[in-house]
Amino acid sequence: MDLGISDRVRPLVEKVRHMVETEIAPLDVEFHREVGRHPSGDRFQLTDRQVEILDGLKAKARERGLWNFWLTGSERGYGLTTVEYAYLAEEMGKVGIAAEIFNCNAPDTGNMEVLERYGTEAHKERWLKPLLEGDIRSAYLMTEPDVASSDATNISLTAVRRGGDWVLNGEKWWSSGAGDPRCKLYIVMALTDPQAHKHSRHSMFLLPAGTEGIEVLRPMQVFGSDDAPHGHMHIRFTDVRVPREDLVLGEGQGFEVAQGRLGPGRIHHCMRAIGQAEKALEILCARALSREAFGRKLAELGGNYDIIANARMEIEMARLLCLKAAWVMDTQGTRAAQPWISQIKVVAPLMALKIVDEAMQLHGAGGISQDFPLAAMWTNLRTLRFVDGPDAVHRRQVARMELRKYANTGT
Amino acid sequence: MDLGISDRVRPLVEKVRHMVETEIAPLDVEFHREVGRHPSGDRFQLTDRQVEILDGLKAKARERGLWNFWLTGSERGYGLTTVEYAYLAEEMGKVGIAAEIFNCNAPDTGNMEVLERYGTEAHKERWLKPLLEGDIRSAYLMTEPDVASSDATNISLTAVRRGGDWVLNGEKWWSSGAGDPRCKLYIVMALTDPQAHKHSRHSMFLLPAGTEGIEVLRPMQVFGSDDAPHGHMHIRFTDVRVPREDLVLGEGQGFEVAQGRLGPGRIHHCMRAIGQAEKALEILCARALSREAFGRKLAELGGNYDIIANARMEIEMARLLCLKAAWVMDTQGTRAAQPWISQIKVVAPLMALKIVDEAMQLHGAGGISQDFPLAAMWTNLRTLRFVDGPDAVHRRQVARMELRKYANTGT
Amino acid sequence: MDLGISDRVRPLVEKVRHMVETEIAPLDVEFHREVGRHPSGDRFQLTDRQVEILDGLKAKARERGLWNFWLTGSERGYGLTTVEYAYLAEEMGKVGIAAEIFNCNAPDTGNMEVLERYGTEAHKERWLKPLLEGDIRSAYLMTEPDVASSDATNISLTAVRRGGDWVLNGEKWWSSGAGDPRCKLYIVMALTDPQAHKHSRHSMFLLPAGTEGIEVLRPMQVFGSDDAPHGHMHIRFTDVRVPREDLVLGEGQGFEVAQGRLGPGRIHHCMRAIGQAEKALEILCARALSREAFGRKLAELGGNYDIIANARMEIEMARLLCLKAAWVMDTQGTRAAQPWISQIKVVAPLMALKIVDEAMQLHGAGGISQDFPLAAMWTNLRTLRFVDGPDAVHRRQVARMELRKYANTGT
Amino acid sequence: MDLGISDRVRPLVEKVRHMVETEIAPLDVEFHREVGRHPSGDRFQLTDRQVEILDGLKAKARERGLWNFWLTGSERGYGLTTVEYAYLAEEMGKVGIAAEIFNCNAPDTGNMEVLERYGTEAHKERWLKPLLEGDIRSAYLMTEPDVASSDATNISLTAVRRGGDWVLNGEKWWSSGAGDPRCKLYIVMALTDPQAHKHSRHSMFLLPAGTEGIEVLRPMQVFGSDDAPHGHMHIRFTDVRVPREDLVLGEGQGFEVAQGRLGPGRIHHCMRAIGQAEKALEILCARALSREAFGRKLAELGGNYDIIANARMEIEMARLLCLKAAWVMDTQGTRAAQPWISQIKVVAPLMALKIVDEAMQLHGAGGISQDFPLAAMWTNLRTLRFVDGPDAVHRRQVARMELRKYANTGT
Repeated sequence: MDLGISDRVRPLVEKVRHMVETEIAPLDVEFHREVGRHPSGDRFQLTDRQVEILDGLKAKARERGLWNFWLTGSERGYGLTTVEYAYLAEEMGKVGIAAEIFNCNAPDTGNMEVLERYGTEAHKERWLKPLLEGDIRSAYLMTEPDVASSDATNISLTAVRRGGDWVLNGEKWWSSGAGDPRCKLYIVMALTDPQAHKHSRHSMFLLPAGTEGIEVLRPMQVFGSDDAPHGHMHIRFTDVRVPREDLVLGEGQGFEVAQGRLGPGRIHHCMRAIGQAEKALEILCARALSREAFGRKLAELGGNYDIIANARMEIEMARLLCLKAAWVMDTQGTRAAQPWISQIKVVAPLMALKIVDEAMQLHGAGGISQDFPLAAMWTNLRTLRFVDGPDAVHRRQVARMELRKYANTGT
Repeated sequence: MDLGISDRVRPLVEKVRHMVETEIAPLDVEFHREVGRHPSGDRFQLTDRQVEILDGLKAKARERGLWNFWLTGSERGYGLTTVEYAYLAEEMGKVGIAAEIFNCNAPDTGNMEVLERYGTEAHKERWLKPLLEGDIRSAYLMTEPDVASSDATNISLTAVRRGGDWVLNGEKWWSSGAGDPRCKLYIVMALTDPQAHKHSRHSMFLLPAGTEGIEVLRPMQVFGSDDAPHGHMHIRFTDVRVPREDLVLGEGQGFEVAQGRLGPGRIHHCMRAIGQAEKALEILCARALSREAFGRKLAELGGNYDIIANARMEIEMARLLCLKAAWVMDTQGTRAAQPWISQIKVVAPLMALKIVDEAMQLHGAGGISQDFPLAAMWTNLRTLRFVDGPDAVHRRQVARMELRKYANTGT
Repeated sequence: MDLGISDRVRPLVEKVRHMVETEIAPLDVEFHREVGRHPSGDRFQLTDRQVEILDGLKAKARERGLWNFWLTGSERGYGLTTVEYAYLAEEMGKVGIAAEIFNCNAPDTGNMEVLERYGTEAHKERWLKPLLEGDIRSAYLMTEPDVASSDATNISLTAVRRGGDWVLNGEKWWSSGAGDPRCKLYIVMALTDPQAHKHSRHSMFLLPAGTEGIEVLRPMQVFGSDDAPHGHMHIRFTDVRVPREDLVLGEGQGFEVAQGRLGPGRIHHCMRAIGQAEKALEILCARALSREAFGRKLAELGGNYDIIANARMEIEMARLLCLKAAWVMDTQGTRAAQPWISQIKVVAPLMALKIVDEAMQLHGAGGISQDFPLAAMWTNLRTLRFVDGPDAVHRRQVARMELRKYANTGT
Repeated sequence: MDLGISDRVRPLVEKVRHMVETEIAPLDVEFHREVGRHPSGDRFQLTDRQVEILDGLKAKARERGLWNFWLTGSERGYGLTTVEYAYLAEEMGKVGIAAEIFNCNAPDTGNMEVLERYGTEAHKERWLKPLLEGDIRSAYLMTEPDVASSDATNISLTAVRRGGDWVLNGEKWWSSGAGDPRCKLYIVMALTDPQAHKHSRHSMFLLPAGTEGIEVLRPMQVFGSDDAPHGHMHIRFTDVRVPREDLVLGEGQGFEVAQGRLGPGRIHHCMRAIGQAEKALEILCARALSREAFGRKLAELGGNYDIIANARMEIEMARLLCLKAAWVMDTQGTRAAQPWISQIKVVAPLMALKIVDEAMQLHGAGGISQDFPLAAMWTNLRTLRFVDGPDAVHRRQVARMELRKYANTGT
């Protein structure tokens, strides 16, 4: 069980870290300052400068061969293992736009995973190719406003056959990335047979972002922020037609596709969360050594040593657990890795939230403001406690797996 | 030690609760939806509808005699005790703009406290009168960007004598309420004698919001939100002149004024925080009973009973502690109440944050969005862990007081 | 809602505190050192010195009128309210044998409560009188080894009619105080009608400790200690005959008796737990100021200020909650007070355990040894998380009560 | 960084696990029941049956080649790595006497480590040989009653030269294992030069247990238990003579010896703690599936799923951190591993205590009694938070190491 950084990946990690720190981080600040400056006043339009920043950095990354690392175990990608990718993803997690620069950002990686595994050649040609090139972006439309989507069998947007097409009606929300004008593809989970077994009721569809009948109602706010230009959109479907060939894999196999998509997606979030926790601890320590109160460095006041030590321990443990989950994925497959992924899915965001919160507290009011990246980290991490399943559902899975060791009962 | 709700205040509490629930809450939603709709596009200008909402509700409150409750122990006010006020403040805490409707909102109440206690007759006539009428608003400029303001002896904006005036230079930030166009008065703490004993270095000044040399640099963001139109402004002072008669109380007595101001201000925040916690628990329970997943009500899933029970216990304990601190203020004065106020200042926001966080989690992603008041509660409560002193400083005070029982040493 | 210390009880509290500190505390140490020194080697026999200590102190307490405070709201007792008693019980909680010295110790107070409320005149004459005199002691036999006794409907020791008598068969354990040679009375809950409604299946019996067929199997150990001479005994009943007149209240009314007994019993435990927490904090602070490491007092190292401050806050909150529960008992009766008692029953032991644990940790290994009272406090407090219902059951009660506000459903 | 179980060690782990479960566990119960049954009444004398149990099991273990695994990286031992040993130690941690059966028990392993690394040939011949054979046992005398031994520079038992000998005076306590009649060797840290640099003031001595002038005052109690026959003894030294050749390594090098000893010792405790946590979770799950209350299995009540899931996650993380610390020891040496050892030293006991506590709570009162191994696990684990340095000191080390990354200052 080698969880270390491999010789192959070590130089890549160094290159990514260096580019993130020296080239991406400063432009990330500028990118976010540009939000809302489009002549139209529309926060979800990219300004020329934003386009320039993204295109410039992405070109550099591609030139240096720092591209599409996420596509593990595939000949289209780097051929990295998930363990190797973890070390890279951690670095990309440290700065807001970094993952996108290396074409490793959610939800596109998960969506490409779907296309790679379950798409037809036509799907791949039309959607996977430009996504792998970083030319377009995509969204994954799953969660709905009116049902407890933590239990995915509740998903209720309907797709019914009409002629050779499917017709979709209903609402989705928290469609992340759907605000971005470059987002061209929606992958949508819909209810196709309410009478079927609960895991065979749903199917997955591909459709272009601008299809007739689709209405973007509003951006959902994350603690008051619209997260423009990425956006988490609330979208209404009214008689939206999808040709039959754009149903992925097969009718009633929506769950299978969703499960195949989620494993890697969930763990990538965790890897980046660990990177954010490291960044927050770095920011915390820097402040603790540079500010004084009551005649002493903040580091030496009150329980700050304990806070720092606990942060270090918790980061190390979460990283090791994440690497182990990655290793199980690499060696035993996504299905066997499910309980491990559930574990890290609970652990990583909570751990990172705690450290970011401590870092904010040590900074005083500045810590929650635009002057430090901490508040944005915090709100981002807070969403992770819902994304791809809330903590309670993952804990439930872990507990059931544990109890299964002792009983053959239906617990 | 009667901590109960008095016969005198009970009907007031009922009236306030009823008005908050039935009249203020619906308009609060509309008020916040109006932000950014001023023709100028300036989020810190009030729209006509916003003015109408505020004026209409305030007129109703005054008509009903629900006004200026906060002015405890004074003939200008209702003559309520702090314990009595606590029950009212809790109700006002449940909805964003409610406290202002009853002219009981921060930072104005604290500022009025300063004027009432330490102001000259001229100060009272010019500033206290319109504040008590609810005609203007005010800001308190204390915290600074470049020093650890948790140790107030660090405050560095300077005031030096020139002619008969004082001339102020430096920066303040997190000047809450200074964004509101109705904010006319600034109360500013400044360093007047760096050589003096550390508690005699500073003085407190009154000056009109538009004074020459004052520049509002930007609104500070709270987790990405500018909190318009209230605003937490970053303000620069360049050669700002203040006539000598607008120095409050006396030169070098800034600390004394600040201390006198803080006692009531701190506890009012706590009372409202407890109201927010109650509101959050109510929202949580309603959701737990109305949504289903995995074939059962959310209430019956996982650890939700424990979450609800713990919330109830923690609210009750915090409320009792807050009432006790209020009772000590009423019976032994603000100075004797300091350690009690420090205790509740630590306890109440942490308790309320925890409950709001659980309520958000139970709601799934909706819980952190604009569709529920929870996210706004959370960010507001999170600031309370810094406002009027961070947790660590208050814990330090409580510990020192405790150890003083056992030793005459300098600990 | 007056939760303060009344003028009537203040001098009693002072007298009790003084006697506990100066007279009982030193002899408590000696009393426990005597355990195991009886010539027979039997740890559950009292040595002459033990008898002398107990009798001497009890005589003094009676002489000074410090006796049977617990009998609130009764003409037989002091006529104290439960709120008043709380202040006394807290002082008695600080030293192991103190409560017994004032005839206020569990389980006797709860048992006397049963006799006072539900006993016949004959029961009162035979058992209540010597208990009130402190001449004998008693045990309450409820919990059983083979069923989850947290759900009292599981209680399975049977009582069946034979002739005019009842015949009892089964096992009880954790019969606290049954180890003491002075224990003369058992109050036993038994299953009398398995077919009845679940709250009418059981009845309560009185019987002398030495009755034929009773076998004391062993003392249950509390973290390895037998808690001699008090003892928590495992007892077997084989065809034990009880005359019909010694069934309390009525057949099938065992639950009613148990409920009536539990209210006051539970809250008395909590009051004493708060006293233990205060004592532990006192011990912690004394050590923190007297020991040095790394060139500084322990108080000034690491997070010790935070530990002390948190302890102070948590004690204050728990005390206030306990007083409020007592006040509800006094003003609205035990039934109305149930949810309040459940709350404090969860809160007080957990709070006290945490503080005692911190105090032990600050003492290093000495803290868990016989040289300080902390370890004994800890094990005693740990049992309180089961006694009279485990935390989980009380949390469940609190949550159900909370949810009932919002729904008429069966949750 | 291979943290997995190696092919070489896997069959050993299976053999050890099998022997622990099927042969040692049942006799462990009997062994502890025998305590106090020696004809002398002395709990620190072994009964014939106790000797038979130990000797019988040890003979079997040796026969099967399951012996002295702990001696990592040495030709005298198995040649295992620390990572490999971790998997074995975890199994041995699950039952009280198991480690001794495989001659892998504290404090003997640490003491053998000292003799192996720093002893002369004569020391090895006299002490190491019989220890490696399991013929004798030993104690390590470090902690003292009168000073804060968490700061080892406080150690005050003196050794002064007289003639060719050293003469020792002072007191030690918590000398674990010194109660066992088979304990023949004491390793004692003493102050030899109070004027020297703080890390050169002490020296380490070897002396036979029965040396004149040594007085075993009493067993220290762990939460009321004397832990017989192992014992944690309080020992007085009065003019105890030690020949000069029995000073280990060199005068003033006591710290160096202590540090060399502690690395492996600390991590072995952690490995066994993780085994105890696994055992406790197993016991918890078994009970959760076998008992019912309120009509459902305990597993399905309240927050028990969350408790089980959290336990699983925390065990996994602690194990991985422990393995990583072991790997750093193996690849970079004990010194480089210090911060990692400090981390796991804090994490493992706290994690295990929490799980054992939850397991006890789920069992009701039985859980803290002699009927389950949980209470003994708990008290044992609680001592680990002091043994080899309290949590606070290890957290301090971790924090200082973290801050060192950012500053060259003396923090």
